[in-house]
Amino acid sequence: MLSENPQMPMVPSVAVLVIGNEVLSGRTKDVNLAMLATHLFAKGFRLIEARVVPDVKEAIVEALNALRVRATYVFTTGGIGPTHDDITVESVAAAFGVPVVELPEAFARLVAHYGEAAMNPARRRMALAPRGATIIDNPLTGAPGLHIGNVFIMAGVPAIAQAMTEAALRGLPDGVPLHSLTLTCTVLESLLADELRVIARDFADIDIGSYPHLRDGQPSLSLVMKGDNCARLEACAEALAALIRAHGGEPARSDA
Amino acid sequence: MLSENPQMPMVPSVAVLVIGNEVLSGRTKDVNLAMLATHLFAKGFRLIEARVVPDVKEAIVEALNALRVRATYVFTTGGIGPTHDDITVESVAAAFGVPVVELPEAFARLVAHYGEAAMNPARRRMALAPRGATIIDNPLTGAPGLHIGNVFIMAGVPAIAQAMTEAALRGLPDGVPLHSLTLTCTVLESLLADELRVIARDFADIDIGSYPHLRDGQPSLSLVMKGDNCARLEACAEALAALIRAHGGEPARSDA
Repeated sequence: MLSENPQMPMVPSVAVLVIGNEVLSGRTKDVNLAMLATHLFAKGFRLIEARVVPDVKEAIVEALNALRVRATYVFTTGGIGPTHDDITVESVAAAFGVPVVELPEAFARLVAHYGEAAMNPARRRMALAPRGATIIDNPLTGAPGLHIGNVFIMAGVPAIAQAMTEAALRGLPDGVPLHSLTLTCTVLESLLADELRVIARDFADIDIGSYPHLRDGQPSLSLVMKGDNCARLEACAEALAALIRAHGGEPARSDA
Repeated sequence: MLSENPQMPMVPSVAVLVIGNEVLSGRTKDVNLAMLATHLFAKGFRLIEARVVPDVKEAIVEALNALRVRATYVFTTGGIGPTHDDITVESVAAAFGVPVVELPEAFARLVAHYGEAAMNPARRRMALAPRGATIIDNPLTGAPGLHIGNVFIMAGVPAIAQAMTEAALRGLPDGVPLHSLTLTCTVLESLLADELRVIARDFADIDIGSYPHLRDGQPSLSLVMKGDNCARLEACAEALAALIRAHGGEPARSDA
């Protein structure tokens, strides 16, 4: 909708590809998707899809090729270390149809990090990249992330993934931030839902999400409004607050 | 590999589809994927892919139709409540090419839960299902999950999603459990990686994952072995323990 207005900039869309058997086996709880979602939202980008795939080349290639044509940017996490199960670089190269080459700048960084005497084939492997890729800075260890086309290739270790995300986003122009408002109450969602549907129709320019949760076993409801026009958001919040009060509830507001 | 042996049962594969704008916007940290991964692993199923899509009918239909042909089962979470943004049922029906109908049993459960006088159109909406679907028990609230073809449709609220997962899995025959062994040490991954690659080749029947992490800023490494043959797992663990010791480390073992 925003992009229909010629005065508004295009809103960049993003897809995330989480790579790793450990997430699918339940051994590791992925935290990178939530980290990316928060950073991308703050940057004014729209995260439109995420996928988690195993350490299998064909699966990575297929998912990446599906995602990189539908999103402005793709961020991948995982699989860029020195071990046998780190196959992201060769998989991304295969997806782009380019060979894997050694990046001199990446090699230099690894030598600076480990020291020349301690370099071994495994460490040197972390200087490999799809041909045409450039480096994403990694302030924590010597192995950089990579950027090729519209794809940002990042580590799976959460602290490193976050540092690389911040480095990658610094290099991109801001998108269009959405403003957000939340009303929380203890009225049952199913009591409000019919009237809420009418309000959602009246405020078609506002994305209204209705999220019930159990808090200590008691039902609680968050109505989350998102939009780019603050006046419309406030008007929507007023309508929803009135709806909550009409059902005997008291809305608690938070500006997020 | 397991399925190549005619004496071994087929190992069921599973794909997960998380449905919800709130996960993509960063507002909600999804916990259902990790819950499902853990339950599916314990059941002896293999989680082969997960996707997160927004509350957009076309996105849900496309993802579901891609996943339900490649996995034995698909589990979806989110979007089955009473509000305007709950569009999973109509989307699943569209994916299967069937109409949405009211399930008498679901309606009876909702009436029993809310009381006849408190039924309203929104609550009645939660009795809708793709034609041909059956009910997944929801012990926490009146609104059931749904099962159609190889797809299990569950709530997004974590406690309800977990109860529905357990109910759905109880109705399915067990898969083939993988055994798992982990060695943790403080040797740098990049020091072990070259020899680890050789061991991984020697133990091609064992899935060896190498997971570095930072613990209070200090690098730590978990080598996770998974396989269906306990003797081979033990032999692999012995080889990896020797490798860790050869680099001056001391492996800590856990049977998970």
